[in-house]
Amino acid sequence: MMYRVRIEVSLKQGHSDPEGETAAKSLQELGYPVKATHVSKVYTVYLSADSGSEARRLTDEMCRRLLANPTKDNYSFNIEEG
Amino acid sequence: MMYRVRIEVSLKQGHSDPEGETAAKSLQELGYPVKATHVSKVYTVYLSADSGSEARRLTDEMCRRLLANPTKDNYSFNIEEG
Repeated sequence: MMYRVRIEVSLKQGHSDPEGETAAKSLQELGYPVKATHVSKVYTVYLSADSGSEARRLTDEMCRRLLANPTKDNYSFNIEEG
Repeated sequence: MMYRVRIEVSLKQGHSDPEGETAAKSLQELGYPVKATHVSKVYTVYLSADSGSEARRLTDEMCRRLLANPTKDNYSFNIEEG
């Protein structure tokens, strides 16, 4: 069965977010009243698995092994069929 | 008033997504049954504005001027107080 997995990876509190800081600075320089900006990444993965629970297990493993760095990143995901 | 704006920027259909392709290839090489992967970016922006409609107007402008490239990107956002 094919699953569509949406994984969001964001930096844990206290970790430096240079891309977010650059975006905030650029927006401020353009005149926008922006206080702060944080950037996170969303992976949409089309994954084949035998069941929803297998898809969840594989997704958690893919996050820990490749898509997120457990030291500095938080991740969350949701899974739907199709 | 302070608003928390969540903006998602993703590539339009047909535009090359090298980061997504690399992620899919790496996951396949690790043995995961992944068919495709797409990557998008989420900006969380803390923005000061007089009203919700002003926050929406500013956000749309920030997307068009800096955060998204209207030629190749889609963007969507939602806004909440706080």
